[in-house]
Amino acid sequence: MTVITLLTDFGTDDAYTGIMKGVILSAFPPAVIVDITHNIAPQDIIHAAYTIKSAYRFFPEGSVHTVVVDPGVGSDRAVIAFEKKGHIFLAPDNGVLSLVLEDDAADLNQNSLVSIENKKYFLEPVSRTFNGRDIFAPVAGNIARGVPINRLGPRINKKDIHRLVIEKPSISGSGELIGIIVSVDRFGNLVSNIDSKMLDEFIKTGSSEGLGIGIGGGLIRGLSRTYDDAVPQEPLAVIGSGGYLEISVNMGNAGEYFNAGTGDRVRLTAG
Amino acid sequence: MTVITLLTDFGTDDAYTGIMKGVILSAFPPAVIVDITHNIAPQDIIHAAYTIKSAYRFFPEGSVHTVVVDPGVGSDRAVIAFEKKGHIFLAPDNGVLSLVLEDDAADLNQNSLVSIENKKYFLEPVSRTFNGRDIFAPVAGNIARGVPINRLGPRINKKDIHRLVIEKPSISGSGELIGIIVSVDRFGNLVSNIDSKMLDEFIKTGSSEGLGIGIGGGLIRGLSRTYDDAVPQEPLAVIGSGGYLEISVNMGNAGEYFNAGTGDRVRLTAG
Amino acid sequence: MTVITLLTDFGTDDAYTGIMKGVILSAFPPAVIVDITHNIAPQDIIHAAYTIKSAYRFFPEGSVHTVVVDPGVGSDRAVIAFEKKGHIFLAPDNGVLSLVLEDDAADLNQNSLVSIENKKYFLEPVSRTFNGRDIFAPVAGNIARGVPINRLGPRINKKDIHRLVIEKPSISGSGELIGIIVSVDRFGNLVSNIDSKMLDEFIKTGSSEGLGIGIGGGLIRGLSRTYDDAVPQEPLAVIGSGGYLEISVNMGNAGEYFNAGTGDRVRLTAG
Repeated sequence: MTVITLLTDFGTDDAYTGIMKGVILSAFPPAVIVDITHNIAPQDIIHAAYTIKSAYRFFPEGSVHTVVVDPGVGSDRAVIAFEKKGHIFLAPDNGVLSLVLEDDAADLNQNSLVSIENKKYFLEPVSRTFNGRDIFAPVAGNIARGVPINRLGPRINKKDIHRLVIEKPSISGSGELIGIIVSVDRFGNLVSNIDSKMLDEFIKTGSSEGLGIGIGGGLIRGLSRTYDDAVPQEPLAVIGSGGYLEISVNMGNAGEYFNAGTGDRVRLTAG
Repeated sequence: MTVITLLTDFGTDDAYTGIMKGVILSAFPPAVIVDITHNIAPQDIIHAAYTIKSAYRFFPEGSVHTVVVDPGVGSDRAVIAFEKKGHIFLAPDNGVLSLVLEDDAADLNQNSLVSIENKKYFLEPVSRTFNGRDIFAPVAGNIARGVPINRLGPRINKKDIHRLVIEKPSISGSGELIGIIVSVDRFGNLVSNIDSKMLDEFIKTGSSEGLGIGIGGGLIRGLSRTYDDAVPQEPLAVIGSGGYLEISVNMGNAGEYFNAGTGDRVRLTAG
Repeated sequence: MTVITLLTDFGTDDAYTGIMKGVILSAFPPAVIVDITHNIAPQDIIHAAYTIKSAYRFFPEGSVHTVVVDPGVGSDRAVIAFEKKGHIFLAPDNGVLSLVLEDDAADLNQNSLVSIENKKYFLEPVSRTFNGRDIFAPVAGNIARGVPINRLGPRINKKDIHRLVIEKPSISGSGELIGIIVSVDRFGNLVSNIDSKMLDEFIKTGSSEGLGIGIGGGLIRGLSRTYDDAVPQEPLAVIGSGGYLEISVNMGNAGEYFNAGTGDRVRLTAG
């Protein structure tokens, strides 16, 4: 049994993801296929990059993580694969694996980084518009089946692959820690790009109780441990399950409460 | 092979449900995971309670039904599990399993009712905001793997667990049977809380043809056997597949036709 | 291992598809169930017909394809099954398998075409409103388990089954090739009913560069090989992954660009 995860922007209205599963099961019948999500906004590489980074380590070692958010489908962008911490990753070379690569970069198996070019493992003919079916699915199935990655194409150098330029949190002239909201979940929780380590270091610069978190026109004081720490319908800030600072409303929707969303700034002041 | 079902309000836009599946497969690789639905409206415990009650018996005996609609996540609400009719249920103690417990209450295995507290089976550290990943998924996987429920925590008494106060159908002063709409499905069918047994008893109080079903400002006469019994675009009332009185429009949408939805009253008059 | 695919208009908000999977796994525990999609617009038989036709051949031989788009549920419409090219198909007799039957019609195994009537393989009692659960799911599970199709009911003749009347592309008086848009995918790509073979023949009637593709009020010149052939936000026409002429906008949404959708005409002029 080998797990193959799928993370795409294909949605679930069309047959695209079902067809990919058919191709995977044709290549490797015992594959256990898990959808991470197919509802990444069309062509939103940054959101996909955060999503795969926060999700992969909860899967069994040996899982093959297949990310198809691929606005350049049919162009000459490469398809890459590598192994890291016992997981295999497969995606277009458009930066969608940037955050996985940066996270504990030392754990990358450098020898495993390849450009997927061996047509023997593709469906023929390869269409120019649906590489998910013709390249990603059969290659994922064959990796799960045990084909060594280095048979799939030539080794490439880590420095040559495409990186996303993702804005990192920064300290302003007046000493604020400024981050941005990178996603909003179904409950309206606003997930920022400020991780718990940055936050801990920032808090040390001031008094421990006085933390202020500005979002939209509003201000939240202090950090909570759980949604339940605020009275119902009141906002709070927590370290969310992915390890990032999150703005929430207990039993409510923070996105609506603050009229805020992806790309908006969050400004922290030490007490 | 053991089936683990998932019923949540997590939606499918975020990676939450995919991550839960990764954790389950890490704990018990042969698990067969089935989504009942993840689109319960956020924190709608009552709808989830009706949904799990109507769905569970169609799964193989031994299935582990995992319900995570959990507005109190991170608070001190308990997590409970029990066995009934050969099925295992796992959920927060917030009443979401009320209808499963009430239905043929005698079939509950009293000895199996436990409060899930054994941290050995949790992911560490347990986050305060995503118990689905850190408690429900690994515990479900371990139950499926064969860990006896009574090793997961202390036995508790049925009378101590939380019950939902769900409005039941009632007879009005003027002799009407009054229920409410508890859900609206994708086809616009309005599902009430009046089950076929109540309806049969009510019909006996009048003549068999004269049944009147009032919904919105409209009135339907008599009970149909199938959607096809009305002409296209005309409304009808049937006993739906879950055993409850349902208002439908043949080839149309009853919710739109009557401008009605969840929480609206349905008033029955005997002929 | 046998794959069972599901293609329905049940959506994923309700428990309907989860319940079907429970019934299938009860009948045949090793079934590998794959969702093609459940988001066919309610009762849109034509879209479902195109979807199953373009998807099935990417699944392993022996797969059981279960199509439940069934506005006539509970009426006396038949349920049919047949084998073609090593795949098994199961659906209401309402034309939803028309395109599968027409495609390489010679490959149909005539002896395998049956009307599903053997109640031994149904859930009892069969509800009048949810045959997906009571007929399609248990029958699919039993076919996957190895029950020969001809035990499921009497053989019927191909000419007696229901066909959809699907408008085919035609040549107008002025020599245009006129098709219609049959679906719009998540990316806003407009998929027509003009396949690559028809297009090739039509192009031969004119000069090879001069092809004009009219849609909405707009006109596209020539055929591209990939989305990337147009500059961002510019429209183009390609042969899509299913083999049909598709109108797209590079990095954009053709449905919005042309304010066009399902049922709209596409008019081709040879150069």
